[in-house]
Amino acid sequence: MNLFEKILSHHGIDPIPEPGTPIRLPIDQTLTQDATGTMACLQFEALGIDKVKADLAVSYVDHNTLQSGFYNFDDHRFLRTIAAKYGMVFSEPGNGICHQLNVERFGVPGRTLLGSDSHTPTGGGIGMVAIGAGGLDVAMAMAGEPFTLPMPEVVSVHLTGQLPAWVAAKDVILEVLRRETVKGGVGKVYEYTGPGAATLSVTERATITNMGAELGATTSLFSSDDNTLAFLRAQGREDVWTRLEPDADAKYSRVIEIDLSKLVPLAACPHMPDLVKEVRELEGTQVDQVVIGSCTNSSYKDLATVAAMVRGKRIPPEVSLVIAPGSRQVLTMLADSGEFTDLIKAGARIMECACGPCIGMGQAPPSGGVTVRTMNRNFKGRCGTKDAGAYLVSPETAAATALAGKFADPRDLGDAPRISLPEIYPTQEAGIVYPPEDGSGVEILRGPNIKPLPLGKAVGRKVSGEVLLKLPDNITTDDIMPAGTHILSFRSNIPEISKYVFSLVDEGFSARAKEKQGGFIVAGENYGQGSSREHAALAPMHLGIRGVIAASFARIHRANLINFGILPLIFADPKALDDVSQGDVLTLENALENILEKDSFDLKNAATGKTIPVRIDLNPFERQVLSAGGKLNWYRAQQN
Amino acid sequence: MNLFEKILSHHGIDPIPEPGTPIRLPIDQTLTQDATGTMACLQFEALGIDKVKADLAVSYVDHNTLQSGFYNFDDHRFLRTIAAKYGMVFSEPGNGICHQLNVERFGVPGRTLLGSDSHTPTGGGIGMVAIGAGGLDVAMAMAGEPFTLPMPEVVSVHLTGQLPAWVAAKDVILEVLRRETVKGGVGKVYEYTGPGAATLSVTERATITNMGAELGATTSLFSSDDNTLAFLRAQGREDVWTRLEPDADAKYSRVIEIDLSKLVPLAACPHMPDLVKEVRELEGTQVDQVVIGSCTNSSYKDLATVAAMVRGKRIPPEVSLVIAPGSRQVLTMLADSGEFTDLIKAGARIMECACGPCIGMGQAPPSGGVTVRTMNRNFKGRCGTKDAGAYLVSPETAAATALAGKFADPRDLGDAPRISLPEIYPTQEAGIVYPPEDGSGVEILRGPNIKPLPLGKAVGRKVSGEVLLKLPDNITTDDIMPAGTHILSFRSNIPEISKYVFSLVDEGFSARAKEKQGGFIVAGENYGQGSSREHAALAPMHLGIRGVIAASFARIHRANLINFGILPLIFADPKALDDVSQGDVLTLENALENILEKDSFDLKNAATGKTIPVRIDLNPFERQVLSAGGKLNWYRAQQN
Repeated sequence: MNLFEKILSHHGIDPIPEPGTPIRLPIDQTLTQDATGTMACLQFEALGIDKVKADLAVSYVDHNTLQSGFYNFDDHRFLRTIAAKYGMVFSEPGNGICHQLNVERFGVPGRTLLGSDSHTPTGGGIGMVAIGAGGLDVAMAMAGEPFTLPMPEVVSVHLTGQLPAWVAAKDVILEVLRRETVKGGVGKVYEYTGPGAATLSVTERATITNMGAELGATTSLFSSDDNTLAFLRAQGREDVWTRLEPDADAKYSRVIEIDLSKLVPLAACPHMPDLVKEVRELEGTQVDQVVIGSCTNSSYKDLATVAAMVRGKRIPPEVSLVIAPGSRQVLTMLADSGEFTDLIKAGARIMECACGPCIGMGQAPPSGGVTVRTMNRNFKGRCGTKDAGAYLVSPETAAATALAGKFADPRDLGDAPRISLPEIYPTQEAGIVYPPEDGSGVEILRGPNIKPLPLGKAVGRKVSGEVLLKLPDNITTDDIMPAGTHILSFRSNIPEISKYVFSLVDEGFSARAKEKQGGFIVAGENYGQGSSREHAALAPMHLGIRGVIAASFARIHRANLINFGILPLIFADPKALDDVSQGDVLTLENALENILEKDSFDLKNAATGKTIPVRIDLNPFERQVLSAGGKLNWYRAQQN
Repeated sequence: MNLFEKILSHHGIDPIPEPGTPIRLPIDQTLTQDATGTMACLQFEALGIDKVKADLAVSYVDHNTLQSGFYNFDDHRFLRTIAAKYGMVFSEPGNGICHQLNVERFGVPGRTLLGSDSHTPTGGGIGMVAIGAGGLDVAMAMAGEPFTLPMPEVVSVHLTGQLPAWVAAKDVILEVLRRETVKGGVGKVYEYTGPGAATLSVTERATITNMGAELGATTSLFSSDDNTLAFLRAQGREDVWTRLEPDADAKYSRVIEIDLSKLVPLAACPHMPDLVKEVRELEGTQVDQVVIGSCTNSSYKDLATVAAMVRGKRIPPEVSLVIAPGSRQVLTMLADSGEFTDLIKAGARIMECACGPCIGMGQAPPSGGVTVRTMNRNFKGRCGTKDAGAYLVSPETAAATALAGKFADPRDLGDAPRISLPEIYPTQEAGIVYPPEDGSGVEILRGPNIKPLPLGKAVGRKVSGEVLLKLPDNITTDDIMPAGTHILSFRSNIPEISKYVFSLVDEGFSARAKEKQGGFIVAGENYGQGSSREHAALAPMHLGIRGVIAASFARIHRANLINFGILPLIFADPKALDDVSQGDVLTLENALENILEKDSFDLKNAATGKTIPVRIDLNPFERQVLSAGGKLNWYRAQQN
């Protein structure tokens, strides 16, 4: 067996099924961050159970740390108190980035981790099966429910040789992205094997598994070996170590060979992480900003390397060098070693330990500017400036570039600094709040912007309502539930954010839905494509939307509709779309029976007197969830 | 003579005139910060001269450092390049707060400093006459023009005794505020004298002179004595020191006696800096946030004291402790001494060296929360949360309160930490950019949001236009030119910000003014009260407003109207207001002659056929400025 299969098998998945078969994976640990965590916690609360059932649930604050207005602090306070009440560990703002902290303090080789953040696979660097998911799925995992996913293919990335001087773990994952592309990893797990993998430290491995998210992979992982033991021992956590390696004859769906000794410094160019070039090709390009940090590259070794490179030098005034350490542990190590002062004296600006610039939370580059970052994504506008170009590089390339004021290959700088891995990482107790044994008396503090989670309606004898909006093909979740700073600040406030549903398509929609007390949406092909945001189902549910009738649905949005109790109905004959107009009243008779048992049935259009044949494509679990009015209702019913 | 008079006399003001008499004070140094500095620099550029004529002009970036979007970085880049071109020193973002840096690096006892920031009087701590002013006045000072102000009264604050343990310089200025109120200092200079003053260090003195701004004072100052010498020597700048003290028989308009040994820890309560209570009275009040920093209280001694107080302890999770050091010098001293790590280990969140939370730039407290701050202003909403209550205290009280999670008097903590003043402050060259000898070839980089400054129209034979808006009494500068994050981001873009003139009063105003190519505003009493913002004159000027006819004007706005070439006309008979309606076309014939020579004249109302008698109340300099179409035009004409 390969390592992924072994961990599945340890979790009771036996025999290992064929790729594509649904598996129900028991989850040992969960991770949430504040941008998705308030909703996940509201969903957990709505499940109606007393205490987290996962072995460990950690609620981190690392995204919304600027606090321009009361919303963020209110969210932090809510997360702190709800964590105490339900038995989650709470990590305060300023403590660091969830994935960095998870590897430092909580990750355990061979265990499973589900996190409401796409970079959760960072934990694969320490030999965990660590997967990103939506807030509701993480809430369910906190409640002890397994996570359902299709069995992935397992690809081996077989590493040989050793990284040359000035070439970094970041260059390894950039090479994988160059070969596999941002879509290459869908439905796959990347397992890093071979003698080259054994030469990499845990934090180097975490850089690679972290950015495996950009492949679209389910997760990535490394063995738990002597380097893992050395890391855990330095963190004072050797007791959680076990050796975990694939069998010598492990089978993989495919093997990718990479000779580390042949790699060179690479950069992902605007605006996609797989647009990879050699840094050599970019040399001389002027840059305005260099940003070092993020869950990909802000370990002690990363930042100590940068400090050694800039020591005694001065970043030219034309370049802004910004550094956001990954955790308080890293920050105090830099301060105590004098490296912090080296960075400051060179002209670096030091941000708080948080995601910060990586998610456009401050430090946006200038208009039309060039920003060089050690981060994981360079999508257009993600840095906060729409017309800037972002490049993704290693810390070594970033520091060389900052010193030169233009793209520079670090291999031209002579001997590389030799940073030895710490024998002891100082444990930081500040910022970690453990829950009380009995949290039942804790009052959850909610600001005016944190509202209780609404629940869907169970399906009864009849589902009836007006067609509130008729839409063309390819409606995105951005069309349904727009984002942007203003609207995003209402993510814990479904009644308020619901006012913006379809606001860019039809300004009057929300008011109309409220007036009519809900109804149906009618659309063409590929309804709900784009971002996976839950709010594109949750907010319409709040407005009373009972069903969407479309020619077809995008996969994730269809799942979200079911999760939140909205019927995803498919026109049996796409031409029937012409027989429905905005304002028509549609009725599904014998609704509960149809949803529980039938694959196709008719809607009645009172306006035309015609019947509209529709299909619904559900597995038995989905039928239960839908008829209960969503997954939360279903879960609560199970508990009674 | 008192010290203020001596410094005036050294600057050629001799004899010293009676209080209230206009004086023209030569300015040695200028200071701008980024929030006001882009406009000041655009104004300097519009003066059309080659190079700064003041001895030293420093352009700091310390306000807009979060960079949520391209606006801030574009402003920083503009400021950096215009500084190089015209010979200003540029202080990069992250370098620290302008007033802290001025005292550390540039301040010279006995010299004059004009700054486009209300806390410029911080420089009085080192024996400078340091005054805050509008951007245009600072631009004029950079061009070598003296600053005109009415001769202030000089009040002596005579200090005796010595501060008891746990009582701080902050408590001295809070005591002065308690006695004098926020209006008590208008038209006054506060000179700190007596044996108690000699016991205070330069940074303690700077805390006091800084927050003298809250008295409404013109400035505050201390002698330059042995402590000043010790400070400058430790900064490697003893060469700029001279002894400066008032004569033994100096005269003051009034003497305030304060026995330092009798002071206790104080707090200014919401929402005004003069609502001062003893900390003892507040004990036990729960707090949500403690913020230490700002130009008032972020010296090395302040933060080292806090570090000593929290060393080995842990701030309770219910309280967020936020620290923003005043400068890179302070930050590296903390890091190198281990105090930085003490702060982190106690759970402090460390922000970048900048104004930050003091101006609501991040770290807003929770809704309805209590925030305890070492800052200088606690106006409602300034912290970023409208319904929060902000208290102003010393660093000692702040740290005691953070440790307790509720208001606590530091005197209950036993022995106070003994922080010795550094014998050497490490000079930080990073972040300070000196201009080239010849900047003429430097390209000024402007983002799309930085537009050239518009100029006013000179007065010709006739001034004529439609009445575009008729307004009641007590119109504020907020009514004229609203603020708020969105509109503020256009402060370097007069064409764009002009779209928001009167937008909260009459949404169509800006479009109408543009269509009609300008005209007149008509209003009642006290037009232009409130904030001193220049944009309330500059933006209407851009829209073509040629005059405001009002029953009376607020003092500062009247000056701004003249500075930007808008006629401030007063109804000779307030009842004539009834004879003017929106849409009427008014004409002033023989305009230039009237403005240059007459105190009263008539406007003709074409709609009614009536004449409207008006007054204009100008000194000869103002007549020159107005007829030229504003101070910039006047200055440029002088140069030709």
